[in-house]
Amino acid sequence: MAAVPKTKNMSKTKRPIIAVTMGDAAGVGPELCLRLLARTDLPGNAVPLIIGDFDVLGRVAQTLKIELKAPRIDSAPSALDSPAVFDPPGALAGNEVEPGKNQEICGRACVCYIEEAVKGCLAGRFAGMVTAPISKKAMNMAGHDFPGHTELLAYLTRCSSYAMLLYSEKIACAFVTCHQSLRTVAPSLTIERIVEVAELASNTITAIRGRSPRLALLGLNPHAGEEGLFGDEEIRIIAPAKKKISDYFMHVDGPLPPDTAFTPNALKRYGCHVAMYHDQGSIPFKMLAFDTGVNVTMGYPLEWTNH
Amino acid sequence: MAAVPKTKNMSKTKRPIIAVTMGDAAGVGPELCLRLLARTDLPGNAVPLIIGDFDVLGRVAQTLKIELKAPRIDSAPSALDSPAVFDPPGALAGNEVEPGKNQEICGRACVCYIEEAVKGCLAGRFAGMVTAPISKKAMNMAGHDFPGHTELLAYLTRCSSYAMLLYSEKIACAFVTCHQSLRTVAPSLTIERIVEVAELASNTITAIRGRSPRLALLGLNPHAGEEGLFGDEEIRIIAPAKKKISDYFMHVDGPLPPDTAFTPNALKRYGCHVAMYHDQGSIPFKMLAFDTGVNVTMGYPLEWTNH
Repeated sequence: MAAVPKTKNMSKTKRPIIAVTMGDAAGVGPELCLRLLARTDLPGNAVPLIIGDFDVLGRVAQTLKIELKAPRIDSAPSALDSPAVFDPPGALAGNEVEPGKNQEICGRACVCYIEEAVKGCLAGRFAGMVTAPISKKAMNMAGHDFPGHTELLAYLTRCSSYAMLLYSEKIACAFVTCHQSLRTVAPSLTIERIVEVAELASNTITAIRGRSPRLALLGLNPHAGEEGLFGDEEIRIIAPAKKKISDYFMHVDGPLPPDTAFTPNALKRYGCHVAMYHDQGSIPFKMLAFDTGVNVTMGYPLEWTNH
Repeated sequence: MAAVPKTKNMSKTKRPIIAVTMGDAAGVGPELCLRLLARTDLPGNAVPLIIGDFDVLGRVAQTLKIELKAPRIDSAPSALDSPAVFDPPGALAGNEVEPGKNQEICGRACVCYIEEAVKGCLAGRFAGMVTAPISKKAMNMAGHDFPGHTELLAYLTRCSSYAMLLYSEKIACAFVTCHQSLRTVAPSLTIERIVEVAELASNTITAIRGRSPRLALLGLNPHAGEEGLFGDEEIRIIAPAKKKISDYFMHVDGPLPPDTAFTPNALKRYGCHVAMYHDQGSIPFKMLAFDTGVNVTMGYPLEWTNH
């Protein structure tokens, strides 16, 4: 995941800094960071700054028989010539970490790393941020009630209108609801939220591709409810939202029966799908673009992508 | 859709009869039936018997400038030498039909056609049945509370344990719930139903392919609930069902995160997916097998497929 502040208020360092948050200390994040530091073929001029725990990195390096060459620094830098590890004081606070296990202390620390990265991005010290995986469970154990990076970054950047976009050349999908149980999806849908996500999607795809997309607005129910037989959300919520989206001069079809909206022919017709829930869009997306797609959160004062 | 009685108690006609129900008289069914009758390249020795309205077929034939050569017969035949139209007395009862509109009378008639076809199949007069599309809305207007052919055929064959299977060489998917609103899916899941569908799927795929499949038992929620963070159905219902399925000596993995269960690599690992709801399985299925897949209802005393 990478975030680029929209205001290019960059610091005076010669090499732009990309902050890399280490993620959950008991997860795969430390290894990913070490492998990144060991690479000599990084593209561009940017220099990685790992934000994480130096001791954990050291121990994992020993296990993996990788040398940890980057130095430890204790405050957020504005300039760097070579890779370094910024270990925010108090994050893990010297606690022992048991690999592979959800632990409160790891949940607390991973949020610290992300906070430091966002602070640096918003202040223009960092050119962008990349995030290693977190454990939502550990984060919750530490009292942080965020289902994922998306919601946490929205909170930290004080952004109230945002949505997830899965993007690739072949298929793009924006999400009206996302990390919540399927049971709660239908009661969460509102006309306003659907219009908001359609607008975010239309603007984002236009910015990426230079032309406005035709949106495929999906139904919620099988066969898009079949005229109210299998649910009335299409009639009460999605069709009125579609009318508003059209009134705002966006190109949109729907509510479409979800299971024929991703066939090869349908994919040719649409620049972006607007899905009502997580798996409705992520199942087809990961089938077609598991290795090439990125996760973009639309609406932040950062431009954030997740590889 | 075609149904073949499992007891091959065939009548003495030289040519096996395939009953073709005309479906909704205001829909595309009459045209499909006429185009079938006009073909001279039908494979095999079977002879089609359209079960539908002779007058409607005549009017549509005139519009399409197709000649309706098959004769009208008023009772279900046991033997046929050439195609015919069986018009069950009282079905449409001479009522006018407005094309393209949901009408109670069409809903009533389409159920008559299907009843006659099932009766003939169960009695061994017909070798199989093929169904043209019905309008679930019209059928409901006529007081028949069936969401589709699947449930209607189960009712007519007095079958209580059945499930939909979408089948193709590349991908197969069995459904724990099917034609119902998304809102009602979570409260409908039970351990017993999941085990029942897994058993039907395992037996059916074994019968088709000659070897038992490894089943991919899907979760209900994003990331399969992520240890209870996004819904607890995986913990309360799907994981215990998986244990029972394993105990019954079937090969099964799960509950799997739905969005990575259909990637090209995952598809290679599994002989059949068990989906918790309609679009969870039908989105990936129609992406990969829209033109080649068939809809099989497992569990009937008929073998029924829908092309």
